[in-house]
Amino acid sequence: MTKKIKPQTLKGFRDFLPEEMVIRQKVIDILKNVFESYGFEPLETPALEYAETLLGKYGEEADKLIYQFEDRGKRKVGLRYDLTVPLARVIAANPNLPMPFKRYQIQPVWRADKPQAGRFREFLQCDIDTIGNASLRADAEIIACALEAIKKLGLKNTKMLINDRYILRNLKPEFVSAIDKLGKVGKAGVIKELVKKGAKKSWAEKYINSFSKEKPTPNNITVFNHLKKLGWKEGKDFEFDPTLARGLDYYTSTIFELASPNCKSDSLGGGGRYDNLIGMFLGRDVPAVGFSFGIDRLIEAMKQQGLFKKLPKTTTKVLVTIFSPEFLEESIKLASKLREAGINTDLYPDPDTKLDKQLKYADRKGIPYVVILGPEEVKNKTVTVKNMKNGSQKTLSIDELQKELQV
Amino acid sequence: MTKKIKPQTLKGFRDFLPEEMVIRQKVIDILKNVFESYGFEPLETPALEYAETLLGKYGEEADKLIYQFEDRGKRKVGLRYDLTVPLARVIAANPNLPMPFKRYQIQPVWRADKPQAGRFREFLQCDIDTIGNASLRADAEIIACALEAIKKLGLKNTKMLINDRYILRNLKPEFVSAIDKLGKVGKAGVIKELVKKGAKKSWAEKYINSFSKEKPTPNNITVFNHLKKLGWKEGKDFEFDPTLARGLDYYTSTIFELASPNCKSDSLGGGGRYDNLIGMFLGRDVPAVGFSFGIDRLIEAMKQQGLFKKLPKTTTKVLVTIFSPEFLEESIKLASKLREAGINTDLYPDPDTKLDKQLKYADRKGIPYVVILGPEEVKNKTVTVKNMKNGSQKTLSIDELQKELQV
Repeated sequence: MTKKIKPQTLKGFRDFLPEEMVIRQKVIDILKNVFESYGFEPLETPALEYAETLLGKYGEEADKLIYQFEDRGKRKVGLRYDLTVPLARVIAANPNLPMPFKRYQIQPVWRADKPQAGRFREFLQCDIDTIGNASLRADAEIIACALEAIKKLGLKNTKMLINDRYILRNLKPEFVSAIDKLGKVGKAGVIKELVKKGAKKSWAEKYINSFSKEKPTPNNITVFNHLKKLGWKEGKDFEFDPTLARGLDYYTSTIFELASPNCKSDSLGGGGRYDNLIGMFLGRDVPAVGFSFGIDRLIEAMKQQGLFKKLPKTTTKVLVTIFSPEFLEESIKLASKLREAGINTDLYPDPDTKLDKQLKYADRKGIPYVVILGPEEVKNKTVTVKNMKNGSQKTLSIDELQKELQV
Repeated sequence: MTKKIKPQTLKGFRDFLPEEMVIRQKVIDILKNVFESYGFEPLETPALEYAETLLGKYGEEADKLIYQFEDRGKRKVGLRYDLTVPLARVIAANPNLPMPFKRYQIQPVWRADKPQAGRFREFLQCDIDTIGNASLRADAEIIACALEAIKKLGLKNTKMLINDRYILRNLKPEFVSAIDKLGKVGKAGVIKELVKKGAKKSWAEKYINSFSKEKPTPNNITVFNHLKKLGWKEGKDFEFDPTLARGLDYYTSTIFELASPNCKSDSLGGGGRYDNLIGMFLGRDVPAVGFSFGIDRLIEAMKQQGLFKKLPKTTTKVLVTIFSPEFLEESIKLASKLREAGINTDLYPDPDTKLDKQLKYADRKGIPYVVILGPEEVKNKTVTVKNMKNGSQKTLSIDELQKELQV
């Protein structure tokens, strides 16, 4: 009827098959647990926002990357670019929310960027933000929560780089976003971009060489002291970095970025204080500070440290095989029993398939256990369970099997 | 700098604040656990698909509701309309996936529909599908898994209505989508729409009165027998309904819909067999059957049955108050200890706030417990914990507090 079409994914977009989903769900579960343990509450916002909500908050370069279109009612709309601006809109739209409001949000964002290695047009962000608390303890709590998440994820050799936008206070926003690329393009690259954006070359050279020698601001020092009291170590867990700029316009003072273990100029996430953003919607300023994890880079770094090696390839724990058609009913009953006991159980679909083909199916899916229910087992009210990893086999009662699989 | 704008949400789109998120996460957790217990594995696909992937699969009426636009590269793209067509594309794009492939997928979909009570333009779907298994046991397993989910959610007075597209085999697709509205607009309404779509009035009247007397097909009877063997009761858990049509074009035989407890013509979800859809991408047919829950309607029905009454309003378990500035450090330490023990803990942000205002904050947020750490408590190495629901107070050691809150 319909002509066959090439079933491709748009460039820059990805499917996540079960093996990858197991990893993602594991990471998200850990992040959620840490976020909630710190008293952050869940929030979700819609993918589409009015274009005017999104535009003019991030800076010129970022605005170009917002997916915009006209919907049916000729309204200009856009796909969310981050989770911070939608949060600011939520705060402004709900003036009766008890303050401070501490929320976490785990949702995809979209950027019409050039797809390249490790960069995608849809990617998941995991954010925590504290709204309505101007105290620097809130900055420290956000950083501590992010560091705790990293600790619980088991990631080594990463630290939070911290700076204060105050150090860059005299720069135009487009100059800040040039400085932000220092780690990637080096001094010469930044100077070139500054000149391209209208700076005098002599000034740019002098500036680049001077600002990188700045000392922590009083705000930075207070945040550092709070962090130390919470048990985090300067130099190991966090450190001052005057060259940190953060690309987005909305930051106002403390800024921070989680350095990737592999490459300091690559970040696993970042954040800072943005005390004026909500005011753009509300008319009065509300203090705010937050941090955003980029899940893809986090997972990439964890993969490189071998942290998922022990993770199964699937959520399914056991395959119940079908010995032959006459034992079909017994296998169906056993599968129901295991499912009832909360054990993730697949039942082989075809009673006419040879047992070794059924085992191969389990192996290809990465299902860790296989149960066999043949004439001997049915007679003795037992089952044979095979560990697919080491090939060992045991004959157990059904109760024993449940206990074995629930571990 | 930027002018203040009205911080509104687009019509038909919603924010989910923490109280609502607690409910949604609870429902999703239960669904995920049931899906995984049946051996369905997680999958996620991108929000944007090529327009040609989406169009021509659902039927004319549905195609009009797909959000389409041109992206930067002048590619025609669309936001996913359901989770079934993206799954079909994934299957066609990954010819080496071990079959049968059983996946669940929980992601939002978008429809440029008229927003109305209970209908939104972005809404969450929770789908299970079995690909590559033509056996009617696969149809029964999908239905059984959906019924098990309903049971685990605690929802009463709902049943699965089951039919076979074979009964409607002689109808044009646009006539099927007219029949699908029978529950909502009644016989007269359907006849009117059939005539509008080109049917003779006399034929439409005769057809409407005859097809609703059809008997279950042999396929239906086989599925019913499988369901009964799995412990589900005809009449109570499922029943035959020849008037069930399902609006989408891609169904080929078994179709089913979960009737809402309040109104039979309203459904909490639906599904069926679609053995030709994947062939539209792949060039060869692959059998497939699936079911999709509409989370919003499910939650609405559960609310009406009072199933969330015992649920807290927030994920946070306890607020650690600050008795006065000199006890700040003690409170910070206690909060860290509770967080370490996996207890979701908020720390009041301002040491200068009066205690009764701090208690009010916990009350407004719905935090179930408040901990007070004053001079007496610090001296005796105890804490006072207040149950915010019944107002009772206890003085406990920190170990006892942890046990109390971990329950």
